[in-house]
Amino acid sequence: MSQQPNWFTEAHLASGSSIGFRLEERLHTETTPFQTIDIYKTTDWGNLMVIDGCVMLTTRDNFFYHEMMTHPALFTHARAKRVVIIGGGDCGTLREVLRHEEVEHAVQVEIDERVTRLAEQYFPELCEHNADPRAELKFIDGIKYMAEIEPESVDLVIVDSTDPVGPAEGLFNAAFYQSCFKALRHSGLLVQQSESPLVHLELIKTMRAAMRSAGFADVRTLPFPQPCYPTGWWSCTMARRDGDLSGFRERGASAKSFPTRYYNAEIHKAALAQPEFMREALGE
Amino acid sequence: MSQQPNWFTEAHLASGSSIGFRLEERLHTETTPFQTIDIYKTTDWGNLMVIDGCVMLTTRDNFFYHEMMTHPALFTHARAKRVVIIGGGDCGTLREVLRHEEVEHAVQVEIDERVTRLAEQYFPELCEHNADPRAELKFIDGIKYMAEIEPESVDLVIVDSTDPVGPAEGLFNAAFYQSCFKALRHSGLLVQQSESPLVHLELIKTMRAAMRSAGFADVRTLPFPQPCYPTGWWSCTMARRDGDLSGFRERGASAKSFPTRYYNAEIHKAALAQPEFMREALGE
Repeated sequence: MSQQPNWFTEAHLASGSSIGFRLEERLHTETTPFQTIDIYKTTDWGNLMVIDGCVMLTTRDNFFYHEMMTHPALFTHARAKRVVIIGGGDCGTLREVLRHEEVEHAVQVEIDERVTRLAEQYFPELCEHNADPRAELKFIDGIKYMAEIEPESVDLVIVDSTDPVGPAEGLFNAAFYQSCFKALRHSGLLVQQSESPLVHLELIKTMRAAMRSAGFADVRTLPFPQPCYPTGWWSCTMARRDGDLSGFRERGASAKSFPTRYYNAEIHKAALAQPEFMREALGE
Repeated sequence: MSQQPNWFTEAHLASGSSIGFRLEERLHTETTPFQTIDIYKTTDWGNLMVIDGCVMLTTRDNFFYHEMMTHPALFTHARAKRVVIIGGGDCGTLREVLRHEEVEHAVQVEIDERVTRLAEQYFPELCEHNADPRAELKFIDGIKYMAEIEPESVDLVIVDSTDPVGPAEGLFNAAFYQSCFKALRHSGLLVQQSESPLVHLELIKTMRAAMRSAGFADVRTLPFPQPCYPTGWWSCTMARRDGDLSGFRERGASAKSFPTRYYNAEIHKAALAQPEFMREALGE
């Protein structure tokens, strides 16, 4: 019952559960001014990035997260030209954003440049669009960036952060959502990773209330599978400045010009369905 | 990074990943003529049943599995009166089946009576309908039972088994599906747990082909979250003797007279959506 030494296991104390991966070797470890980053080669999941003991992504299953953090929002907006990604240092979210031809500029605001440099080395497929002339990579504090950004200059803000403890804590409160709201143009969207619907439902409720209090007209939480995160089930929460989130460009999603592995128009609709316990807790 | 001794961890060698639960204590262990059964009390997931080292269920998250193994099929069939459950010794599937008033008789055919006796003791909420006059519990071999059952006598067969190794291996092949097909009345349904869409896609393809070759007119695989199983993402595969599986009694599901925690009419529709990689692999 005990793990072999050649496994990496993240014991998630808040849920009393753990998820582990069998390893071939450790490829890298370093402590940056912000956090400790480890990279492992696994036997079945490609490479694995761990930050401060928490699994960030694996080669094999990051497609669920990156596709669901981007395509539902981009196919909801009529034509998102300017996109801001807060966090997202592995560049997987940026890659998916840049698959959309309507995007004219996407800036990734990651506090820790070393996350991106290690992604370039160990997850090169996620970084393949980093040289796109529409992409801009900044390595600064995302909270400050959003507080100072020109009002009504952005169509979509994606908050692709670590858990709401440590450096990411300030990304989960009303002050930050007010910054996002002010930054958005008419019909603009905010989408944020919102943890496990099974374990973090209170956090999701708090996030949604804070988004509404910041002025957002509609809020939806979309669950999706994510094997490498606690409970194997995760979510993103979308908020829209004006209008509602029930509709999307379904024909555009059905006829999309780029490949995906999880997302498609049917999955978009499916992700808007709320499990009964979420419907009851979130009042939808 | 290594697990504390007070964790139960299932290392799933086929996928190179593991899922674990923090324990308070071991409540029971025994080796039956069929398998070794352990029961633990966890810190956050209620009780945990483990068979031959594989997690079977926890108090906290079994609702995903039991609801999805039953309600989609029962709301697809116009009026399922007679139901057979193969396996399902924890009685959770039986409980969900008996929530449907149209069901007149449900027989649970579990090879190992000790699974049910331990469920009565450690998961009493799953067994609360065992005394229902519509319920019949048999402790015999399900493969033999289905081979000998009266033709066209059943509306729904639910195969709620362990993985396709050991005693359950014979539940995943064309001969067994032929027995099920013969047992079903017009419009009858088969539903079977079909492992993780991410890791066991080849098994799912093989199951679906075998179901079609046994004569089933339509086959659908419905993914759902299941935190305690490998990858945290699981599926059931439904097959229909005649007709297709795209429609269901949506008004009945919306107006259902019993509580659920995951399933509802929206989730039913959502579960019929196929992730892009499944659509490509399964040809839908």
